[in-house]
Amino acid sequence: MYEAKVKIGLKKGVSDPEGTNTLKALHLLGFNTVKEAKTIRTVDLLMDGKNKEEVRKKVEQMCQRLLTNPVIHTYEIQIEER
Amino acid sequence: MYEAKVKIGLKKGVSDPEGTNTLKALHLLGFNTVKEAKTIRTVDLLMDGKNKEEVRKKVEQMCQRLLTNPVIHTYEIQIEER
Repeated sequence: MYEAKVKIGLKKGVSDPEGTNTLKALHLLGFNTVKEAKTIRTVDLLMDGKNKEEVRKKVEQMCQRLLTNPVIHTYEIQIEER
Repeated sequence: MYEAKVKIGLKKGVSDPEGTNTLKALHLLGFNTVKEAKTIRTVDLLMDGKNKEEVRKKVEQMCQRLLTNPVIHTYEIQIEER
């Protein structure tokens, strides 16, 4: 069994409204030391597979077909054996 | 400058509709080796502070007041100096 973590962030220049609003809200609450807030989504998959390379290939395909939008997202895949 | 990462997951027993739907969609696309899918949100903060302990305290407060819902969320704070 393998655990694959896909970290999905936004490409440079793409606006992050969730992050911007988090920052605004933190300032309103008086947390003025915060200079920047970004949000990242991680999808954590538990899956079968022969080896790390095969699992990585499958996860790459999932990213391209479902998990990410190539126009706005960057992604990073981490795979660990379980 | 410090970088604080807050990983926000769901407590055990709390349903994760985004994860469930991701799993369903992956199966529909033929990725049948995937057994489980979970989603985690990470808030990445860049902030000023005197030391790690002070920054951690502030981030704990932010989690309790804004970033997480204690009824359904668990969170984990990682702090690194920049």
